[in-house]
Amino acid sequence: MIGVAALREGPAAARRRALAKAITLLESSLPAHRAQADALLTEALPHSGGAIRVGLSGVPGVGKSSFIESLGLHLVGQGLTVAVLAVDPSSSVSGGSILGDKTRMEKLAIEPNAFIRPSPSRGTLGGVASHTREVMRLCEAAGFDVILVETVGVGQSEVAVAGMTDCFALLQLPNAGDDLQALKKGVMELADLIFINKADLDPNAAMRARAQIVSSLRLHNQAHGAQWLPEVLQGSALSAEGVAEFWAAVQRHRAHQREAGQFEARRHAQDLAWLQERIDEGLRLAFAAHPGVAAHWPKLKDDVRAGRLAASTAARALLNEFLGEKTHG
Amino acid sequence: MIGVAALREGPAAARRRALAKAITLLESSLPAHRAQADALLTEALPHSGGAIRVGLSGVPGVGKSSFIESLGLHLVGQGLTVAVLAVDPSSSVSGGSILGDKTRMEKLAIEPNAFIRPSPSRGTLGGVASHTREVMRLCEAAGFDVILVETVGVGQSEVAVAGMTDCFALLQLPNAGDDLQALKKGVMELADLIFINKADLDPNAAMRARAQIVSSLRLHNQAHGAQWLPEVLQGSALSAEGVAEFWAAVQRHRAHQREAGQFEARRHAQDLAWLQERIDEGLRLAFAAHPGVAAHWPKLKDDVRAGRLAASTAARALLNEFLGEKTHG
Repeated sequence: MIGVAALREGPAAARRRALAKAITLLESSLPAHRAQADALLTEALPHSGGAIRVGLSGVPGVGKSSFIESLGLHLVGQGLTVAVLAVDPSSSVSGGSILGDKTRMEKLAIEPNAFIRPSPSRGTLGGVASHTREVMRLCEAAGFDVILVETVGVGQSEVAVAGMTDCFALLQLPNAGDDLQALKKGVMELADLIFINKADLDPNAAMRARAQIVSSLRLHNQAHGAQWLPEVLQGSALSAEGVAEFWAAVQRHRAHQREAGQFEARRHAQDLAWLQERIDEGLRLAFAAHPGVAAHWPKLKDDVRAGRLAASTAARALLNEFLGEKTHG
Repeated sequence: MIGVAALREGPAAARRRALAKAITLLESSLPAHRAQADALLTEALPHSGGAIRVGLSGVPGVGKSSFIESLGLHLVGQGLTVAVLAVDPSSSVSGGSILGDKTRMEKLAIEPNAFIRPSPSRGTLGGVASHTREVMRLCEAAGFDVILVETVGVGQSEVAVAGMTDCFALLQLPNAGDDLQALKKGVMELADLIFINKADLDPNAAMRARAQIVSSLRLHNQAHGAQWLPEVLQGSALSAEGVAEFWAAVQRHRAHQREAGQFEARRHAQDLAWLQERIDEGLRLAFAAHPGVAAHWPKLKDDVRAGRLAASTAARALLNEFLGEKTHG
């Protein structure tokens, strides 16, 4: 049984082992583990909330790992402790890649003040990031100052990460086709900060990309009455150029959010979204596990697929199995 | 009690009245009505599936109503019957606008072979389009050849409409700022067809917009290995220029989908999504209506908001109330 004390007291190496173990407990689906995880989370909660939570996204090849390593080393150099988590929707589909291999961040991985947690290897019914919110709390209770949540450039996971962090940053390439980049602009709307990486490879292209993004964001902000105009920075993760400026921008964003009263508001909204996610996930799991539902689902699904039964009617039949005498909608 | 016969037999005016009444029945939340609606849908299902289902979206001001009226009149002129439905996420927020006022389509509204159904006036827990899928089936059973589903340029509703139609078309303006347009490109990925409306106002701008969209789509298709390159057309809804070409493109798209075996696959996937949506909605409604849940929810929500309780723990407590002795996740 892991307690919060194990996360907060004793030698650093032991605390990190306890944290890794606690996260594994959180990710377990055994009911006994879940009860322990609940107890641990409840104990951890008063000690949580202190970190800056930063989300990082960008298409494959943009240099996310290098950037996170550079940023992590910068923060550790300033005496801060850093936890790196991953939300990886591809893990259940393509076998996964991000953070699966710690050697991608060799230097950061051996820093005593850094903690890198690979993405969970299996998908869950609860969506792309079902435990990341909880893991963040444990990292905060364990005293980490900064939590970096990495995700790949896929819509659903980016929405999820933007919805659990204080600051969501998007990494961009300077020299990719403008059109392909533009297609990602649905994601750009989520961004609080944009960092054009590998700017040293083609400084002119980077300047053009920056100007284009700034004007696009300005128009978008005008259209939506947004208060924060996302800062657009550039640099190179490999040479660490622009990384300190990036961190300064994260802090400016936080100061702005605090002054505008939006920092707490965003966290509150995120906590309520977390509650709703967990409820939805629990309902779906209980539904799928119900014997009556499990017994009838395949046949009803076939009937719906074959056009013999309206989906709404099939849903009602399954809900009746599940809810029994309960009133339902 | 309405039967399918009332939708299919007798004078046109009486059939339309029966259809309108049946839709109202579908939208009712009274349990007795729901049972009747289920029976009606089950009866209607073997007669459904025959229409071409076309989704239409575009930002306010792009001329959706004019386009739908023009297209509707074109189809009616060819001897086809047309039903126009709306998915309007704004109706519960801002009071609603689209199709709320039939006078926006004065000429189409008086055509005996057209049926225009305004969007439902209240929002539901089930999302932006909870009944539209069912209403489509009733319209099909009532013999309509074409179903046009209109929505406004808001992400969630566009995803919903693309997910319930055979062909999703996006209307674009030729002369809006490229940047603001580009921000909509997340939606453009959903489009099977794109129509640049009001092209007569600035033919050069329309040509430029068309070229830009085509090259952007081509790159995107290459990146995603898509089989259908969306056709990009232009014209003017007011003068009906390009409307016949639009309809020809819808038919080319359908022929292509059928040949590639994607037509049925898309409908099957949509039917299963419909089933899942209805289950989720039913679970949420039953959960919210449960006395134990209702009694504890406000307090637990406050605890989560205030950081006194982990959302996952609060969710578990509420799920325990709801599920009782049932096993749950």
